[in-house]
Amino acid sequence: MRNSNASRSGSRRSRSGGQHGQTKKGRPAGELRWVPLGGMGEIGKNLSFFEYGEEILVVDCGLKFPEEEMLGIDFVIPDAQYLVENRHRIQGIFLTHGHEDHIGGLPFILPKLDVPVYGTRLTLGLVENKLNEACPRYRPKLVEIRAGETTQAGSFSVQGISVCHSIPDSLGFAIRTPVGLVVHTGDFKLDATPIDGRITDYSAFAELGKEGVLLLLSDSTNVEREGFTASERTVGQTFEQLFRLYKDRRIVISTFASNLHRAQQVFQTAARYNRKVALVGRSMISYVELARKLGYVDAPDDLFISQQDIESTPPNRLVVLTTGSQGEPFSGLVLMSKGEHRQIRLGSKDLVVISATPIPGNEKLVSRTVNLLFACGAEVVYDRSQAIHVSGHASKEELKIILSLVRPKCFAAVHGEYRHQVRHVQLARELGVPAKQVFVLTNGDVLKLVDGKGQISGRVPSGSVLVDGVALGESEGSLLRERRELAEDGLIALSLVVDEQFRIASPISIESKGFLHCQDAKDLYREMEGAVRKALEPLAGHPETDPDSVPTLIRKKLRDVLSRYSRTYPTLIPLVTRLGQPTPTKGRKRSAA
Amino acid sequence: MRNSNASRSGSRRSRSGGQHGQTKKGRPAGELRWVPLGGMGEIGKNLSFFEYGEEILVVDCGLKFPEEEMLGIDFVIPDAQYLVENRHRIQGIFLTHGHEDHIGGLPFILPKLDVPVYGTRLTLGLVENKLNEACPRYRPKLVEIRAGETTQAGSFSVQGISVCHSIPDSLGFAIRTPVGLVVHTGDFKLDATPIDGRITDYSAFAELGKEGVLLLLSDSTNVEREGFTASERTVGQTFEQLFRLYKDRRIVISTFASNLHRAQQVFQTAARYNRKVALVGRSMISYVELARKLGYVDAPDDLFISQQDIESTPPNRLVVLTTGSQGEPFSGLVLMSKGEHRQIRLGSKDLVVISATPIPGNEKLVSRTVNLLFACGAEVVYDRSQAIHVSGHASKEELKIILSLVRPKCFAAVHGEYRHQVRHVQLARELGVPAKQVFVLTNGDVLKLVDGKGQISGRVPSGSVLVDGVALGESEGSLLRERRELAEDGLIALSLVVDEQFRIASPISIESKGFLHCQDAKDLYREMEGAVRKALEPLAGHPETDPDSVPTLIRKKLRDVLSRYSRTYPTLIPLVTRLGQPTPTKGRKRSAA
Repeated sequence: MRNSNASRSGSRRSRSGGQHGQTKKGRPAGELRWVPLGGMGEIGKNLSFFEYGEEILVVDCGLKFPEEEMLGIDFVIPDAQYLVENRHRIQGIFLTHGHEDHIGGLPFILPKLDVPVYGTRLTLGLVENKLNEACPRYRPKLVEIRAGETTQAGSFSVQGISVCHSIPDSLGFAIRTPVGLVVHTGDFKLDATPIDGRITDYSAFAELGKEGVLLLLSDSTNVEREGFTASERTVGQTFEQLFRLYKDRRIVISTFASNLHRAQQVFQTAARYNRKVALVGRSMISYVELARKLGYVDAPDDLFISQQDIESTPPNRLVVLTTGSQGEPFSGLVLMSKGEHRQIRLGSKDLVVISATPIPGNEKLVSRTVNLLFACGAEVVYDRSQAIHVSGHASKEELKIILSLVRPKCFAAVHGEYRHQVRHVQLARELGVPAKQVFVLTNGDVLKLVDGKGQISGRVPSGSVLVDGVALGESEGSLLRERRELAEDGLIALSLVVDEQFRIASPISIESKGFLHCQDAKDLYREMEGAVRKALEPLAGHPETDPDSVPTLIRKKLRDVLSRYSRTYPTLIPLVTRLGQPTPTKGRKRSAA
Repeated sequence: MRNSNASRSGSRRSRSGGQHGQTKKGRPAGELRWVPLGGMGEIGKNLSFFEYGEEILVVDCGLKFPEEEMLGIDFVIPDAQYLVENRHRIQGIFLTHGHEDHIGGLPFILPKLDVPVYGTRLTLGLVENKLNEACPRYRPKLVEIRAGETTQAGSFSVQGISVCHSIPDSLGFAIRTPVGLVVHTGDFKLDATPIDGRITDYSAFAELGKEGVLLLLSDSTNVEREGFTASERTVGQTFEQLFRLYKDRRIVISTFASNLHRAQQVFQTAARYNRKVALVGRSMISYVELARKLGYVDAPDDLFISQQDIESTPPNRLVVLTTGSQGEPFSGLVLMSKGEHRQIRLGSKDLVVISATPIPGNEKLVSRTVNLLFACGAEVVYDRSQAIHVSGHASKEELKIILSLVRPKCFAAVHGEYRHQVRHVQLARELGVPAKQVFVLTNGDVLKLVDGKGQISGRVPSGSVLVDGVALGESEGSLLRERRELAEDGLIALSLVVDEQFRIASPISIESKGFLHCQDAKDLYREMEGAVRKALEPLAGHPETDPDSVPTLIRKKLRDVLSRYSRTYPTLIPLVTRLGQPTPTKGRKRSAA
């Protein structure tokens, strides 16, 4: 698959660390190693593994969306080089839930490992869709597991623990190893009144605590939030109020396609208020379709109408459930807000509810969308003041409860930025985990567990793999730098032909992109051409000249000219062709001819 | 000055509107026009003017920082074309306060108008610094005004009203015109306990209300916030607590350089706790220097130490006041967080206080900086839970108070995004302004006031001027599109030489930027060269070929090759030189030779 082949970019630390992290055969028995390859110091691309003797057990395989400065990059996935080299030792990949940051890396990594993947029914359904799309010819080994059941994978025995999250059928794991018991919470919250009635299994955590837990890995996302995260049900109550208040309007609700609890509540409220539902947005349609097929969402067929019937349905009889809650370009809601959606025109008859809060980095996109929705004349409910969204992650008090139930010997904070990890281990210490036994790891760090004690020692090669439309190759660092320079200042390409004597033998062609065009700055271009001719004058009649020096000469002269017009410099690409000779100018392809 | 010459980009509406908005001599007496050229539907580049008969009065002249997608752009300023064309009619520019979004446009616009600028002492001091730097040879006419005093400018008489804001010496204006009284709040809050004791002049607003106000223009920034904005003094109390709590640590405080009230509180607290102060960051140093010179900040010389003495000062005896509260690259705090600051190394002995909240769009930069500060081992106070920052803008209840004091006939919401304007006029209606007399304008709209009634009618040419390192010229729209394409996918430039018969007469040179380099994809490059040769084969021996068609041919063939490697296409720049002929290929400079 095209995308799968992409480039590695490890921090210097992880690269150098790579060596002494390399796999050595036959690890000391009685030693368990836990190694995160993603998800440390970041919220995204979660992937970690356990290593005991010759056996490896992987938990999750996620992706991350690129940072602004990663120009043209589609996804970032963890560098799984170590796992690829040791694939014969992998007992399986266990998935906690079906969010992109936990399963999105599979299409790129799984075909290289080809090991069994364990997950709940919904999670595997999402994985199947994903793999069918990305690598249709690949046949993965998918094994369904259930909360409460235990699965043997080599000498690891893995028990699924039911946890609540913003996507159904999520799991934590209790992993029994010859060295001791590890508890991984996965992404969770302690919602006492979840929509599907499937609550986080406190008692399981309590029993594990009694059994004695060597290591707890716990979700750090909301450690900065005081108190408890509100129940998903509170959003349903807000929907109820809004449906009552705006009974004459058409109601457009935007949320995360994967938040099927939210969708379920929309469907129930719509049914109660005798409204039909239209689904908008590719991912919204496919998530709901899958969830209904697998029985995770309960809604009768006749509740739904097709997009074509939206405008012909009376406003007060319709709810539109759409993607775009993050202001994503080309998403359903954004197209509507710009008046560019084929089936929907928004106006004063509409109430738009953005049932989400912006993910950090999306604030501006969301804000822009809200302004456009107002400009359509729609009423918009979006501000945090109203309970139109709840987080899927546990807040401080919930994290305390898990810590006091599990009472681990060792603790490591997972799924968080650096500051979240630091705050979370501080919390663990306050709840009695010894200062020496709490750990903030970075991706690639190895946490060794021996005799009930943990220690960070050694590293495994790690880093980010940037997935682009085209495989970037090892040099992607420099490519991104070049893209940034092009983005800032544009470029000027010019070609000229010289004879063997370095006399200019043709007109000079100059073309610019993202920089003043010739027709807008004739003087500048005339000056530039003059400068190029001047640059070459001294060479005329000197066939011994090193051709590699010519572009450098030209760049220098052009800079002098540009410095009078601009504080910044476009990228300069002089292409010099020397007649009767191959053109071995640096950084250029020498013709095979 | 280089930057001043930049490009216009009006919305289609503003362009077309431009025509019938053009200045006509001799407006009907008894008609007042108010026209915003910036600050509507945006928080930034505030600039509006009043027009009565032949006379024009301008309020503020700000800039805005570019949106992400404005690649390589430094600032955005309002299109002041209309004012330039009518500069002889301008009676003066009145400045409400010294923030960039109110004075930052002056260096680009004022020299073209060369009219007197009115402002308070501090505001003019900041303007002077700005102009000295940007256009040293230009001598502006600066006229100092004071709160409470009235200034005659043509038939406009302008009374300054003291208002509290996040920069000292801010004004609102009461503008008396032959048609009626206009009140402009400027940026304000109703802080009852401001640091400088200079409170917002309620009674002035009350008296103006009694006098009878035709039009109120009021700050909409925080209309979405319930209640009242907290007093600046609350931040001082937090400082007090932090200084007591962390008495052994070095304290690093980061805030906006222009927030001199905040600086004053830092200085007072530092003095009380017997700590010296070191200023870090170019703008922090220059703002404090100016404010001390003009007497807006009260601090003895011996309170301050130079950056060189920072590391030699005992931690518990020092406060560092620095820029970087928005995570700006190369700002003081960001350099410290990366360990790249010359004079300061942060560590576990440090407490860092970020006394600001991220401006929308800066969230990620700030979050990254916080994580780096944690990684330095410093304790960091940044979250909203603690009162370490207050806004400079009035919240909902304060806006209500102004509305009920002023009781205007007409109301227009200024200084806000579209949704803020809508919410603010809704508020005005709730407080008794007739529905027909509340207005949401967009930049360029003309609000006509006749016989105590307002009406939006006609437009004035308006839009955004993008200021780049180099003047972009009118075509900047297309330039930005090109930059985006280059940023996403990079480019491939190639040059080849053909003879008059269109036979390839030289090796083909290919160079790429921001795209796979030759050494990383030899096959691809070999294929591309083959494709180019193939593209030209059929032309060989056909001198009648249209040279303009050649680059298009080449692009097409290259796309075919690339489509097998990539989902995305780099920008393709084929430079074809035809020997013995000028090279009239499209979009290229024809040689003068």
